[in-house]
Formats: sequence, structure tokens, C-alpha cells
Amino acid sequence: MRIKITVSYKGTNYCGFQIQQNGNTVQEELENAIYKITGEKSTVIPSGRTDSGVHALGQVAHFDTNSNIPPEKFTSALNAYLPKDIRVQKSEPANVNFHARYSAKRKTYCYTYYFAEQDNPLISEFCERVNKPLNIELMKKAALYLKGTHDFAGFTNTGSFVNNTVRTLYNIKIKTEKEEIEKVKIYINGNGFLYNMVRIIASTLKDVGLGKKPPQIIKNIIQTGNRNLASPTAPPNGLCLLFVEYDI
Amino acid sequence: MRIKITVSYKGTNYCGFQIQQNGNTVQEELENAIYKITGEKSTVIPSGRTDSGVHALGQVAHFDTNSNIPPEKFTSALNAYLPKDIRVQKSEPANVNFHARYSAKRKTYCYTYYFAEQDNPLISEFCERVNKPLNIELMKKAALYLKGTHDFAGFTNTGSFVNNTVRTLYNIKIKTEKEEIEKVKIYINGNGFLYNMVRIIASTLKDVGLGKKPPQIIKNIIQTGNRNLASPTAPPNGLCLLFVEYDI
Repeated sequence: MRIKITVSYKGTNYCGFQIQQNGNTVQEELENAIYKITGEKSTVIPSGRTDSGVHALGQVAHFDTNSNIPPEKFTSALNAYLPKDIRVQKSEPANVNFHARYSAKRKTYCYTYYFAEQDNPLISEFCERVNKPLNIELMKKAALYLKGTHDFAGFTNTGSFVNNTVRTLYNIKIKTEKEEIEKVKIYINGNGFLYNMVRIIASTLKDVGLGKKPPQIIKNIIQTGNRNLASPTAPPNGLCLLFVEYDI
Repeated sequence: MRIKITVSYKGTNYCGFQIQQNGNTVQEELENAIYKITGEKSTVIPSGRTDSGVHALGQVAHFDTNSNIPPEKFTSALNAYLPKDIRVQKSEPANVNFHARYSAKRKTYCYTYYFAEQDNPLISEFCERVNKPLNIELMKKAALYLKGTHDFAGFTNTGSFVNNTVRTLYNIKIKTEKEEIEKVKIYINGNGFLYNMVRIIASTLKDVGLGKKPPQIIKNIIQTGNRNLASPTAPPNGLCLLFVEYDI
């Protein structure tokens, strides 16, 4: 039987989702927990890898099992063996045709900046600091160029080899949140993302908000595919994979 | 010279503010950092202790020094020696009559609950989970009884010996925040707080919101001073000292 799980994790203490030779990974923790429950060495397939230090609210993954445990019982069973910074939110039966990666239609990421003169330990694990206020209107203007189907070759890091760098971004929202601390949240919803794409978009929009680059820079990067026109990759702590959407 | 500092800390890994025989404390970290900068063994006096695991956004403290370092330079100098989960936000010269504890006029705390069926590692270090939605209207009704000058003897834990258990709460606000996760925030502003008072108020309001107790229970607890009518002390992770206000 195929089981679909929705998982939240704080990425701070992990070397990303995918199993590696050295370092803790979310996948390893999940597979160890499954082994303790079922005695089976299942492989956990996610909707996509998240990098070292990146968080997830609703990462989706699947695995196969021959056990008789009812699918919905895996939630509490896995949580009993998982470390506190990884929590299964939901487990459910999945169609044999369901594949967490290949069936994924849309994903939503959020990158969060906060404005403060000094680091704030209450949020610094989940947000990246800027030391000047961001001009949201300029950022929104820049974001308009990103919407739609484009070649995002200029928004990915070398070292990633994919044939097709065309992706569709359905929506980009930039919202401010002003509780005790002023935050700027960049929500990006698309059909797929290149390596480091969200973090390069976030840092470039941030530099637009700081007045370091004009909003039109986004248009230039898309047209030229020139990675050097975009900003350095934003740190992982500000990034969170929020949701993954499926048709099946 | 007397220096006033405003400090943020994530309380998770500390046994509270005040120095103890065993365990890390915020005070010890601050005094160690001051010693490294000035060579002086200064005592850091806070507006009040925070308990083990409780956070602070704007704790205020003072210390005396004979060093010639300009007061505002202590912010970055201390942060260079402090662990990442403690950050000085501001340092400034203070009048000799200024005393972080005795001069404090008002403090604002915030206790945060979130509703989810499973723990959420992205917020569980800063918010406490409830597994049913809270009825905010009932909580607001209950909070009205708390406003004003009352004997709060029923909202403190035994083991605390103070002669006067009368305190004034100027304001209690209950707000919902519905981003990706539904949160209920209880803001309490008052002239002083008894031992565990905010955490007992928070848990009692939470039980009112869950329908386990009627809003009038607050009135009864104030009138009778009966601790047993109130709910068990809420866990420390949900509590944050937001601001301390002074006249001088």
C-alpha cells in the first residue's frame, strides 16, 4: 500500500531533506521511524528536496508498505519515533499512481525578511534580517515581471544541470506583517522551481526593496538569462516550503 | 556610569534570567560578556526575572561600569560575545536614579496558543498547542473581569511569598492571527505580576475558550483567591515578555 504523508519540519539542524553520507537528514529520520514501526526498509520520496536549513510547513512525501497499520494511524505512530523538529501532520492512503514528486502540480514557498538593527533571536531561525526598511511597492512592481511562463535560467545556480529552465509562476504575493516586529513575506506559487530559484528571486526582490536595483532588473534577468545580474542566493533560514498541490 | 540595555532572548535553552547554581542563565551570559569587554564584574539587574524557558522581546536591565566605552557601543560589543539566542537591541546611558526593577511602571506580556491536531515544529518553541479551536468571544468576556485593580492571590502559585497580592492590569487584548497557522495571542499589560500569574491567567482563559470553564470563573477566582479554581500553570514556551515601560 502507498501512504501519502504531509510533514512539517524545522530545517535548522538538518542537512536538507535527502539522505546524505554525512549529516542528519529529514528523509533518514522518516525512514528510521517507518522501520521502527513496520520493520520494513521503505524509501520516502518527497515532492522535492529542500536544501540544508530550509523549513517546511507542508512537505508531501510517499512510501510503500506491506504492513496492516491503517494509513491514518501512521501520523501518531511516526511522531512517537521522530525528533521534535519533524512532525507528520497527516497520513492517508494514496492511489498506486500517486507519486509525491511526479504528481505534484503546484508548490508554494514563502521567504521572510524582517527589518531590525540587531538580530532577533525570537525569529532569526525563520526569517532573514535586513538593516533598512524595504520598499514594498518597488518589490511588488518587480514581482509582476516574474509572473507567468518564463525561462528562469538567470535565477538558478551553476552546478544544477537541467535541460529545461522554463517554469510557470502562477502567483507572487508580497505582504507586510507588523506585529511586534516588521516582516516582509514573499509568497511564490509555481509549477516547479529550479535549484535555489526561490532564494535568488527573494534576494533580488530584497535588493529592489532596498533601492539597490531597479524593478526592471527582473525583466533583464529573464531576457538575458544572466545569473550575475541577480543577487546572491538568500540564506536558507528565511525559506519555507508551505504547500504542495496535487490533482490526484 | 549606569547603562540601560534592552535585550531579546529565546528562553528555550536557559534556566531563566537569574543566575543559578546549576544551568545556563541569561544573566550569567550578559555578565560574562560585560566582563570580557570591561574587565569588570558587573551585576546585571533586570526589570524582573523570567522563568526557565520563557522568552523576551524587550527585557530591560541595567548595570554599572567605570569603563570609557560610549554607552551606545555596548550593543554591538556585547553581541560580539553573547550566544546567538541572546541579542542586545539597545544600550543607552541611564540616570543614576534609574533602576530596571524599581523604576519599571508597566510590563506587557504575550502568551500564544495555536490550534492544530499535531505539534508544529515551526512554532512550537514559541507557542503552546490546543487540539480544539478556542472560542475567542468567551475568552474576551472572561478577560473583562481581569482588567483593573484586584487581589490576584488566586492567580499565583504557592511557594511565592509576597505580602501584597494586589496588582493592576491596565489592558488585556485577545487577538487571532490567521496566517498559515491559526494563533490566539493574549496580551496582558499591568503594573506588576505575581509569580506565574500570566501563565495561570493564560491557561484559565484557554480553558474558558475550550468551554471547560465559564467566563465568570475569573470573577470567582478574584473574589475567593482560590488557586484551585484556576487552571494549571501554562507551559513556559508560550510566554514572552514584550515590553517594559518607564517614566524616567
